[in-house]
Amino acid sequence: MRSGEMAKLTQLIDNEVFRAYATYTTIVLLKMMLMSLITAYFRITRKAFVNPEDTASFGKGESAKKYLRTDPDVERVRRGHLNDLENIVPFLGVGLLYALSGPELSTALLHFRIFAGARIVHTFAYLIPLPQPGRGLSWAVGYAVTISMAYKVLKTVLYL
Amino acid sequence: MRSGEMAKLTQLIDNEVFRAYATYTTIVLLKMMLMSLITAYFRITRKAFVNPEDTASFGKGESAKKYLRTDPDVERVRRGHLNDLENIVPFLGVGLLYALSGPELSTALLHFRIFAGARIVHTFAYLIPLPQPGRGLSWAVGYAVTISMAYKVLKTVLYL
Amino acid sequence: MRSGEMAKLTQLIDNEVFRAYATYTTIVLLKMMLMSLITAYFRITRKAFVNPEDTASFGKGESAKKYLRTDPDVERVRRGHLNDLENIVPFLGVGLLYALSGPELSTALLHFRIFAGARIVHTFAYLIPLPQPGRGLSWAVGYAVTISMAYKVLKTVLYL
Repeated sequence: MRSGEMAKLTQLIDNEVFRAYATYTTIVLLKMMLMSLITAYFRITRKAFVNPEDTASFGKGESAKKYLRTDPDVERVRRGHLNDLENIVPFLGVGLLYALSGPELSTALLHFRIFAGARIVHTFAYLIPLPQPGRGLSWAVGYAVTISMAYKVLKTVLYL
Repeated sequence: MRSGEMAKLTQLIDNEVFRAYATYTTIVLLKMMLMSLITAYFRITRKAFVNPEDTASFGKGESAKKYLRTDPDVERVRRGHLNDLENIVPFLGVGLLYALSGPELSTALLHFRIFAGARIVHTFAYLIPLPQPGRGLSWAVGYAVTISMAYKVLKTVLYL
Repeated sequence: MRSGEMAKLTQLIDNEVFRAYATYTTIVLLKMMLMSLITAYFRITRKAFVNPEDTASFGKGESAKKYLRTDPDVERVRRGHLNDLENIVPFLGVGLLYALSGPELSTALLHFRIFAGARIVHTFAYLIPLPQPGRGLSWAVGYAVTISMAYKVLKTVLYL
């Protein structure tokens, strides 16, 4: 990295790109955490549990055992949650390195906003559910943003 | 490493809040990694595998095929592992941003200690298992700590 | 946010250890993201879907319903993907803290290169699949590298 770029980078942290990264990362992580509450909501309203100790309040023996079952709505939320993990973990890591690689503020904001928007749309598309290719496209947009940031990181810091 | 760079690194790693974050993050990540070993232990002792190549040492054909099955103990550990991923990933990201947002050392330590303690209790509650609401409460405590840190991050850095 | 503390992190991008961390982390996260595309490839070629809306293009009713099924190849890629999450998330967190703990460049490179190599071998071992202990050993190598970095982090920063 050239030292001119370095001088700008030293001011980066109390700077706007890192603050934008912090803001959008916190938003998508909170959104991901929301999936746990939605799963709990559907498990309770659909009475569909997986751990025997979770059904103890419904009585003992067979009367409780029937609630140890899978429910399509619960499984759908869980798939959305896992998809979040698979996509938000790369954003967390690549996004941090990207924010430190000295992008233009406007370019960085564009990446972060599109990613966060795409993941929120993806969640709605999964849970409603919207007809395809709604979910597929929202997934692909978030994926493409992460690839774009990864390319910038590797171009800037490559050290093998 | 050049000593000039060394000095810069020492500055960040000298920060007590950041050192506390580094310590507790490493502890919860090691705890999460332990789940892999516990899964392997139960797969081997219960003889319950999922990949055909993993049962090759038991012979060929039907004699090995019977070990391709699910086991309640294995599945329980795997659920605990996934729950760790769902909750420790947000802590990893939000906690880093929180540590950089300039919290009081005592407040930060309180957050990190409670989170790590809650996740350790959660693991015992899941694996023993403890009757509910033991597992549910320990999960909720870790969740609330992460929300509290996220609130501090957004209050400090918000840049949309 | 106090700008004095925040400024320190930005200087890291010029540090060779941190650049190596950024490079190898981006590589393993891209490798992990590739698993999504491989899953999609197998779902489409094997016609094995999990969401009813994904099979709408095959017609309505029973003709589409038969594609809502599990396929051994799809499930194998998904297990590899989950194993990536379980192992690359600890690397992401512990590796960052390790890079900040002031290791020798040559030692750090050794850790990062072995980890990345082990995870790439693990993916091939899982998808081909190679006979055991191919997959098990590649998993263990990556695991051991992360433990070694965690030990260095705790030795350097421990603050309980």
